[in-house]
Amino acid sequence: MRLMYNIREYMAIMNDQELKRLIAEIPIHELIEVWDDLSEDDELRIFSMLDLEQKVDLITSLSISTQEALIKSLTGDHARLLLAEMDPDDLTDFIQSVSPEVRESVWNALSEETKKETQFLLKYDSDDAAGLMTPRYLAIRPSLTVAQALAWVRKSVRKIETVYYIYVLDPLNRLVGVVSLRDMLAAEDSDLIDQIMIKKVITVDQDTDQEEAAKILETYDLLALPVVDSHHRLLGIITFDDIIDVIREEQTEDIYKMGAMGGSTERYLESSILDLVKKRIPWLIILLLAATITTNVIAHYQAVLQAAVVLAFFIPIVTGTGGNSGTQSATLMIRGLATGELHFHDIWRVLLKEILIGSFMGICLGLLTIGRAMLFPPLISLNEAVAVGTALCFVVLLATLVGSLAPIIISRLGFDPAVMAGPLMATIIDVSGLTIYFETARLLLHLT
Amino acid sequence: MRLMYNIREYMAIMNDQELKRLIAEIPIHELIEVWDDLSEDDELRIFSMLDLEQKVDLITSLSISTQEALIKSLTGDHARLLLAEMDPDDLTDFIQSVSPEVRESVWNALSEETKKETQFLLKYDSDDAAGLMTPRYLAIRPSLTVAQALAWVRKSVRKIETVYYIYVLDPLNRLVGVVSLRDMLAAEDSDLIDQIMIKKVITVDQDTDQEEAAKILETYDLLALPVVDSHHRLLGIITFDDIIDVIREEQTEDIYKMGAMGGSTERYLESSILDLVKKRIPWLIILLLAATITTNVIAHYQAVLQAAVVLAFFIPIVTGTGGNSGTQSATLMIRGLATGELHFHDIWRVLLKEILIGSFMGICLGLLTIGRAMLFPPLISLNEAVAVGTALCFVVLLATLVGSLAPIIISRLGFDPAVMAGPLMATIIDVSGLTIYFETARLLLHLT
Repeated sequence: MRLMYNIREYMAIMNDQELKRLIAEIPIHELIEVWDDLSEDDELRIFSMLDLEQKVDLITSLSISTQEALIKSLTGDHARLLLAEMDPDDLTDFIQSVSPEVRESVWNALSEETKKETQFLLKYDSDDAAGLMTPRYLAIRPSLTVAQALAWVRKSVRKIETVYYIYVLDPLNRLVGVVSLRDMLAAEDSDLIDQIMIKKVITVDQDTDQEEAAKILETYDLLALPVVDSHHRLLGIITFDDIIDVIREEQTEDIYKMGAMGGSTERYLESSILDLVKKRIPWLIILLLAATITTNVIAHYQAVLQAAVVLAFFIPIVTGTGGNSGTQSATLMIRGLATGELHFHDIWRVLLKEILIGSFMGICLGLLTIGRAMLFPPLISLNEAVAVGTALCFVVLLATLVGSLAPIIISRLGFDPAVMAGPLMATIIDVSGLTIYFETARLLLHLT
Repeated sequence: MRLMYNIREYMAIMNDQELKRLIAEIPIHELIEVWDDLSEDDELRIFSMLDLEQKVDLITSLSISTQEALIKSLTGDHARLLLAEMDPDDLTDFIQSVSPEVRESVWNALSEETKKETQFLLKYDSDDAAGLMTPRYLAIRPSLTVAQALAWVRKSVRKIETVYYIYVLDPLNRLVGVVSLRDMLAAEDSDLIDQIMIKKVITVDQDTDQEEAAKILETYDLLALPVVDSHHRLLGIITFDDIIDVIREEQTEDIYKMGAMGGSTERYLESSILDLVKKRIPWLIILLLAATITTNVIAHYQAVLQAAVVLAFFIPIVTGTGGNSGTQSATLMIRGLATGELHFHDIWRVLLKEILIGSFMGICLGLLTIGRAMLFPPLISLNEAVAVGTALCFVVLLATLVGSLAPIIISRLGFDPAVMAGPLMATIIDVSGLTIYFETARLLLHLT
């Protein structure tokens, strides 16, 4: 039983001293879990009881609007202390997102040095590698000995976000090497940095996409990734914790795209109704307009439908099962393309695989439909059931192929398959699925 | 223009020496991107030209089956060297996944010490925190001075995966503190570890779920997270790079669930047809059987349909738009529940928000449908268009509510909303959507 679950009851009955002792026992990550459930007064009361480091851990894990409310509640000096503890990259994100009045008071609370750092970081696009970086890194010259460098590290250790990689710069501030603190410790005191540094430094450019930067850091299991300009001068470093944030953010974006939504990844409860509508309605309109083509298809088969109204019963099954099969294939392709496992030249292997899978699944689902139609109401004739089942089999095969090929082709054309595949695929599957359905039924049932 | 794009052409015309010089210029992350496109012979030729560290970076980023092929190709001594460089946690994953014959030869190539480590790690479930840990951490006693501890760190630095946190154990090997290398460097040589160590160590239990471990490491921006047993004895540490892998894996799982698939997150091209069918067909069957209820609904309104066959034209629009609106709401809820932003007690706020959003979107989409129906073929009467548009408005509102409430309620009941919400939601929306559609049409068109 974790303490946090009862925090609200405790708060009502405890005085400040008792509560402070209780709060001291609660790990910050449990506090974060229930934070949104507390009243604003309780939030402020607890927040005031945390020590500075806990405040920073807590505040950087909360949403921007909650951060804003907490910072606003602090008096000038307290805010100053807290802001001084935040990493400059987190601070820059915060300043970019808060409301103008808070931004001004936050800005005034910053030290001159932090203001300069922040101004420097604000120049870069927040989706680029440079938007993630901190300018607080350790840099030395290659001519130092290990003993001199270690002494320098020990002196600078408090001001720096990551002390575990030390970057080596030439007189023009170009990045010529990197030494890990580990290698430095393993070396002899008299060794020159120039001798022990790694000269082929893994870097990213300032305008490298943040997702690409994440992949590079992951590949080499780096703690930090240096960002350089076009002259190979070191601008800053991206630390692994910012990369984890990027991975989470991209994940939310991908999931929203699959759920047919665009726009921001702002939290649900904090988004205004207007924001949510703006994120959702464009896709619904596009999908609806595309789907209206199906009305023309069905209208085209009006005579068939009037001759066998039973065919209308199965329209949702045809479009639904087609859609589901297509979504499965598309999901596998989109994920494979995103992780770099699949490429355009794999298209023939994919096609072969999906033809086999689609045929097999189509036959199973077709037989299942025939069985279901014969055994349960609405009872229909065997001929009709066979027609529906046969059509469904073809629809599943078709949907599987469309679902797998559409993302590969869209991605080859340079568009984002996660966004484009949905509406295009749904329309093609619905329209051609219904055509197959009515044509098969017409042939097998000998209708006009 | 990156070198890698032409690697296959280069390989054909270059001798080994030239190729080796070329390969030395290519960063490993670019090599990984194109690796699957190379022939097996080319893979082996390039692999043999890499130095040991590059081999390790490359191999740990590849899929298990590619790893297997590469390791198999190495002679005993080369394999031994490579395996000795791999981290014990990566090695354990590898041993658990390879085929039995490779496992045996890999096992024989391990040093006695590594065998022991691996045997220890194999005891734990790979989805638990303990399944991610490495036993290679630095541990010291609290009675050492900083100078003594630093000397010990410098001696051990080569054997250890993470030297940047040093764990402090009591004589019973219980974790009593942690010192970062940074704090140690900032302290005076004569300080006692006991004085400078952090006593409230953030830990996870051996059976903590890996996703929970990931969230904790993220909250505190830690480089590594210690895993303890029930007596608070230190078993091993989880490093940030393994946490990044966990986040990626969970992401693939979530996306597959949303695409209505279960089972493994094995790569597409490496999965057998049977595996893919097993992953996909159960969901298609469940969704198909659930959807067959719609046949009963439509059959129930057979008379209405025969009186106005035009109503059949819009069936795919009703189910499709309902499904899309529901999916949007459900996606927002599932993501909010997964990130911990939404809780059951937010249900009333969500309900209110979705009623407003659903009504607004319903009215827009309803009007759009009426406009589309009046302007483009198949031309229908104004009355019919109004009936369809009105029905669609209600369907969108209903779908929005079902899509938002289903995940919250399912999660409250202790099930995974990402898995359960799909079929349940689709069925409810299709069945009640079609009922609303036919009832509205019957009323407005004064049918039977």
